[in-house]
Amino acid sequence: MASTTKSTITISILLPFLLISLSVTAEPPRHNVVIIFADDLGYGDLGCYGHPTIDTPHLDRMAREGQRWTQFYSAAPVCTPSRAALLTGRLPIRNGMCSLRRHVLYPHSAGGLPQSEITLAEALKDVGYATACVGKWHLGHRSEFLPTKQGFDEYFGLPYSNDMHNRRVPPKEPGGKASHERIGVPLMRGEKTIEQPVDQTTLTKRYTKEALRFIEKNKDRPFFLYLAHTMPHVPLFRSEPFVGRSLRGVYGDVVEEIDNSVGRILDTLRRLDLAGRTLVVFTSDNGPWLICRERGGSAGLLRGGKGSTWEGGMREPAIFWWPGVIKPGTVRQMGSTMDLFTTCVKLCGAKLPKDRTIDGLDLSGVLLGTGPSPRDTMFYYRGTQLCAVRHGPYKMFFFTQPNYRNRRGIKHDPPLLYHLDHDPSERHNVAKKHPEVIDNLRKIAERHKKGIKPVPSQLDLVQKTEPRP
Amino acid sequence: MASTTKSTITISILLPFLLISLSVTAEPPRHNVVIIFADDLGYGDLGCYGHPTIDTPHLDRMAREGQRWTQFYSAAPVCTPSRAALLTGRLPIRNGMCSLRRHVLYPHSAGGLPQSEITLAEALKDVGYATACVGKWHLGHRSEFLPTKQGFDEYFGLPYSNDMHNRRVPPKEPGGKASHERIGVPLMRGEKTIEQPVDQTTLTKRYTKEALRFIEKNKDRPFFLYLAHTMPHVPLFRSEPFVGRSLRGVYGDVVEEIDNSVGRILDTLRRLDLAGRTLVVFTSDNGPWLICRERGGSAGLLRGGKGSTWEGGMREPAIFWWPGVIKPGTVRQMGSTMDLFTTCVKLCGAKLPKDRTIDGLDLSGVLLGTGPSPRDTMFYYRGTQLCAVRHGPYKMFFFTQPNYRNRRGIKHDPPLLYHLDHDPSERHNVAKKHPEVIDNLRKIAERHKKGIKPVPSQLDLVQKTEPRP
Repeated sequence: MASTTKSTITISILLPFLLISLSVTAEPPRHNVVIIFADDLGYGDLGCYGHPTIDTPHLDRMAREGQRWTQFYSAAPVCTPSRAALLTGRLPIRNGMCSLRRHVLYPHSAGGLPQSEITLAEALKDVGYATACVGKWHLGHRSEFLPTKQGFDEYFGLPYSNDMHNRRVPPKEPGGKASHERIGVPLMRGEKTIEQPVDQTTLTKRYTKEALRFIEKNKDRPFFLYLAHTMPHVPLFRSEPFVGRSLRGVYGDVVEEIDNSVGRILDTLRRLDLAGRTLVVFTSDNGPWLICRERGGSAGLLRGGKGSTWEGGMREPAIFWWPGVIKPGTVRQMGSTMDLFTTCVKLCGAKLPKDRTIDGLDLSGVLLGTGPSPRDTMFYYRGTQLCAVRHGPYKMFFFTQPNYRNRRGIKHDPPLLYHLDHDPSERHNVAKKHPEVIDNLRKIAERHKKGIKPVPSQLDLVQKTEPRP
Repeated sequence: MASTTKSTITISILLPFLLISLSVTAEPPRHNVVIIFADDLGYGDLGCYGHPTIDTPHLDRMAREGQRWTQFYSAAPVCTPSRAALLTGRLPIRNGMCSLRRHVLYPHSAGGLPQSEITLAEALKDVGYATACVGKWHLGHRSEFLPTKQGFDEYFGLPYSNDMHNRRVPPKEPGGKASHERIGVPLMRGEKTIEQPVDQTTLTKRYTKEALRFIEKNKDRPFFLYLAHTMPHVPLFRSEPFVGRSLRGVYGDVVEEIDNSVGRILDTLRRLDLAGRTLVVFTSDNGPWLICRERGGSAGLLRGGKGSTWEGGMREPAIFWWPGVIKPGTVRQMGSTMDLFTTCVKLCGAKLPKDRTIDGLDLSGVLLGTGPSPRDTMFYYRGTQLCAVRHGPYKMFFFTQPNYRNRRGIKHDPPLLYHLDHDPSERHNVAKKHPEVIDNLRKIAERHKKGIKPVPSQLDLVQKTEPRP
């Protein structure tokens, strides 16, 4: 008798999730996807991640209604490779979107995300989704690399970072000096520059307006919105109502404007009755830029920040929201921005590319409450260099970075070993205590390296006479 | 018309608070007070303060239903002075409960909280409260200093820290060597030792049972319960169901057992229909003991830990709960454990001592949502040494501590200056930019020092032939 009741309960709990799974396979896709990506926001910069003076009521509410992940990673500690991985589900080392010489793409770069890569926008467009990229792109600003060539129906935003005012002009004669040309940061719509230099004070507001317009326009069909905020990357800008609002100063104002933007998007989804069929994910591209002092963010209790493979460089705030579908709570399992590719492709009934390695894993079990995260391993790259490997709670370092600008880092042999669950701040090297863990992690790293085929770096391609975007 | 509606709304919002204020003055006291005090718990050690691997669902719920404060301080970075201040509302420098030679009281100490001090228990007992101290005392273990002599009807717990297994025996002859006698840590009921050495594995469980028994027994009269957990002070112990439960390891197990204890207390208050007339406060005596490595906690994004006057040593998690009365939300204003004395005395209709300086301020405006915190200044003492002063967002250091054991610290002249709202991690000294702030903080410190009358240190009193407690 008790057993029957239990089964009935189990069925009634699982039923909504089963129906969702059925709808994925049997019906045309109906779920929308919104990915909101902050720039240089640190692990500790939201109220619900413990910041004492930044007020983020909308993200805190999103976290209460959804899932707040505490071990969610970007695939790289800097912008360009991180974004390439998010949109393709692949480590940047597989498609050339990294380099040991250059952190990211610059205004004089000639490379970009190869056309042969399949972005999440392309995968979802294939099954009938409307797609838009609003915000920072940073995956190639030449015409052939722009969002509109990578599966996005629409694009409104900056082609690269908001501090890239200048373009390096190579020396006119061999042996001569390079110079810098002040170009200002362009704002683009589609493939055209519509404002240069862009007025950054209203940028978050204008991104939000674009995002809301896209949602309204596509309310009756499935859509994928990639809203990649330019902020809180330095230089910091916020619109008038947010000036001086935050206890945390300018950086706080900027984060609070993003929080407000998230609130408006979720409110719009509720109002349009789309909340129950829209997965919204909020996360960041890499850790806080600590060299910017008060103008950079905080990684909370984590060590390091942007540009480093300490946890602070790559572990991000990550909130998943889908009322009625996602099981609310705190998730202390591992996930990666690359997993968003695979998870969304699966949830939306699109096709996972079979002709290439996809590093992303399917997190839908955790989202729906039907199973654990399949992710148990993380590779921490800095450019093309594998610096650290995590398997289970243990993270082993081959290389660490003394500072942001240092390229090769410090080699560790024997490697450093940290137990991240016991010691999230990476304070206590336990390598001597666990030689067997070191052996295992070395094997995992070797096996991984064997699977990597060398490809030319897109970041090292520099154009001598580059047309303006 | 609009204005009338607004007034009506304002009145209906304020009415419950007005009724409470009336009941404070016109009726016998009806509100209960429960203060739950953790030992060495860091600012970053709870889920709702951002810890990635410690699971504290009950404290997180308490925070959601009540107020979570992000700028709440203990009055000292170590145990004995911190507790003396909590119970008296006075800085330890005013009553001798601090010393530059000794952090705290030890088993060979002969001093304790002077009888002339008025504890919160005494103040509330005067107006008819039942009072109990359950847990760690550490304000003097000689008979005349025990809780039962300081206003508590009942006492069940340890007289000092759980790592104080040994008592120092002074040299028998002048010039001889001191030795140590292994005494084990005693568990006391009332004024009697009932178990020595105490079985610490079940301590949190037994404290909880005592607390619940006291609440049940006094459900029909006003009561004050001071539940001062021995944990998570090292050595760490937890009862069987919590062994191996936390991702964070032993330290996490121990914190999660305390979380469970909090959940049981709040559940009991709800079940007995006391929730609406009981103020429950959860906080900690000082920051995490970082020298204990993985066995110590985390101050989150804050710098330093136990024993230091960096924020990590004295800023604590602080959650206030009183359903239907406290305005839920995050509070980013300043508060101190000393303010609990004044706030509770006022809320419970007891008398504030008029013959001495009380450092505690009344926070009831923030709790009830009727006004801001009156606290704008904090004095950071280490022993008898004033190390830093905070006024508004600015904190100025005269002395910092290079490590836990260093007594005098490093003197800074010119002082260091930090903007704590912009820079909660105390990374960027802004002294050069703000000479006017330095001047003002110097004046505040001088004025404060003039108001301090020298008293003998209770911590420096050591008994040659001390009777066992």
